[in-house]
Amino acid sequence: MKMGIIGLGRMGSAVAFRLVQAGHEVVGFDPDSNARKVVADFGAEVVDNLAHMVARTQIVWLMVPEGKITEMAFNELLHHMSAGAIIIDGGNSQYQDSMNRAQIAAQKGISFLDCGTSGGVRGRDTGFCLMVGGNKDAYEQVCPLLEAIAAPEGFSLVGPSGVGHYVKMVHNGIEYALLQAYAEGFHIIREGSFKDADIDLQELSRLWNVSSIVRSFILELTHDIFKHDYVLDNVSGEIAESGMGLWTVQEATKHAIPVTMINESLRIRARSRETGGTYATKVVALLRNKFGGHAFNTINKDNTSKE
Amino acid sequence: MKMGIIGLGRMGSAVAFRLVQAGHEVVGFDPDSNARKVVADFGAEVVDNLAHMVARTQIVWLMVPEGKITEMAFNELLHHMSAGAIIIDGGNSQYQDSMNRAQIAAQKGISFLDCGTSGGVRGRDTGFCLMVGGNKDAYEQVCPLLEAIAAPEGFSLVGPSGVGHYVKMVHNGIEYALLQAYAEGFHIIREGSFKDADIDLQELSRLWNVSSIVRSFILELTHDIFKHDYVLDNVSGEIAESGMGLWTVQEATKHAIPVTMINESLRIRARSRETGGTYATKVVALLRNKFGGHAFNTINKDNTSKE
Repeated sequence: MKMGIIGLGRMGSAVAFRLVQAGHEVVGFDPDSNARKVVADFGAEVVDNLAHMVARTQIVWLMVPEGKITEMAFNELLHHMSAGAIIIDGGNSQYQDSMNRAQIAAQKGISFLDCGTSGGVRGRDTGFCLMVGGNKDAYEQVCPLLEAIAAPEGFSLVGPSGVGHYVKMVHNGIEYALLQAYAEGFHIIREGSFKDADIDLQELSRLWNVSSIVRSFILELTHDIFKHDYVLDNVSGEIAESGMGLWTVQEATKHAIPVTMINESLRIRARSRETGGTYATKVVALLRNKFGGHAFNTINKDNTSKE
Repeated sequence: MKMGIIGLGRMGSAVAFRLVQAGHEVVGFDPDSNARKVVADFGAEVVDNLAHMVARTQIVWLMVPEGKITEMAFNELLHHMSAGAIIIDGGNSQYQDSMNRAQIAAQKGISFLDCGTSGGVRGRDTGFCLMVGGNKDAYEQVCPLLEAIAAPEGFSLVGPSGVGHYVKMVHNGIEYALLQAYAEGFHIIREGSFKDADIDLQELSRLWNVSSIVRSFILELTHDIFKHDYVLDNVSGEIAESGMGLWTVQEATKHAIPVTMINESLRIRARSRETGGTYATKVVALLRNKFGGHAFNTINKDNTSKE
């Protein structure tokens, strides 16, 4: 099959890569010529505007920042597309926006699927987790494409329009709290009663991942970080965020659902940017870099570092 | 090799089982004759007092409730043992108690190892995660036994006396927060904006475990629960606890280390026992049952249920 992809950054190029590897055709667009070159080099066609993309395929995947940029791309796609076309928003849009877009698209006979995409930068190799909301017919049409992008059995229609981005929002809220929970534990071990014993966190994180109750993908990433360094003297404890934790808390508050873990992990991030943070928030900042490629700050240097 | 095991409940009998399966000899003791019969049936020798046990082996594993019972068993073992003997406390003792016991044992030339044991009831089949604190020589002497009890590569000397139980305490503190974090997310999905969509939590927990950032052993157990039921109308939201979360918070407080996630998850458990809890605390109560075999309460029935 053939699919257009708008946005060829870390995530968009990984999606393109997996499609090409699986034998599908990709038509990519990104305003950045370097990003276009990367996907052209592994066999995707690239175009320099959306009209050209839609002329080649009526199935298009959006992988751009949520909000204004997604809205602009969506509107331009609608303008060029005809009835029967399918738009998949694989980004982190607000679920209410996605519900609205599905309604607007439907007026032109165009299907809109909201697809929560998890897996981070490693998804390029292992496949992503795709949580799709929307119309079943459209979903089934694009299943061969989703199968190529996802890990084995890693895609599913989770509900009607909006539910894909909704459960991805909650997923990220959970993630905020999980990161902070592990980080607090390692903070105690570093700075508590056995501070002077210099407990080997590389070995401990390996050991816990073998068969303890707390074993997880996040703990595997923590081990990868600690293999390199667990003193973390040069890492700033400032944690950035991209909004989904806040939305999760807002949604819970609206329905009077207590989400203390998610709310407090959000507040700790805000505080970390005022105070410079703690050992725990350093671990969270590095984990965000590890799974999402998000920049973290280093200490005594004015620049930000990326892995 | 030959090892004595004091305490043949869920965990102790699982340790005995793994040792017998690996070709070691086990001498078991438990005040409960039914518990003795279970291990005798799979090939362990059983004795009816500790003097008889020590006459057969000078290496003994304690798997009894922390506090008074551990203290009594420890003192009686010391009374019967001679120099060169090794006691391993595989339970959840307070690390300060374990440090004291190691010192007392050393005065008689006896080695005391504190061993944090994780893996829950499934550890019988998959092997446990063993975090050992203490003397290196004693550790190396019992390595063949630890290897049989643990999952592959699942045991390690993590530091001097006390550190095994210390990191197990922190591990359980992390676990409290992780359970609550997942549970809050599912609570939002059940009772938030898409309440009426009845999102399939069995399918969602399966999907997230394939390749999302939040995949973990705890999420696998959550999926096992949701396969059976995710409405949870008949489950009480009261969460019990066994003390290690509290110790973790006390330790962190002593060193002025902020552990908001762990502290709040502990407070939520206390509140759940006053109020009957929420959908989220029902999930936590069921997860504790799933990994640890801990009882949970059912609603409109006066008895407690065990899986």
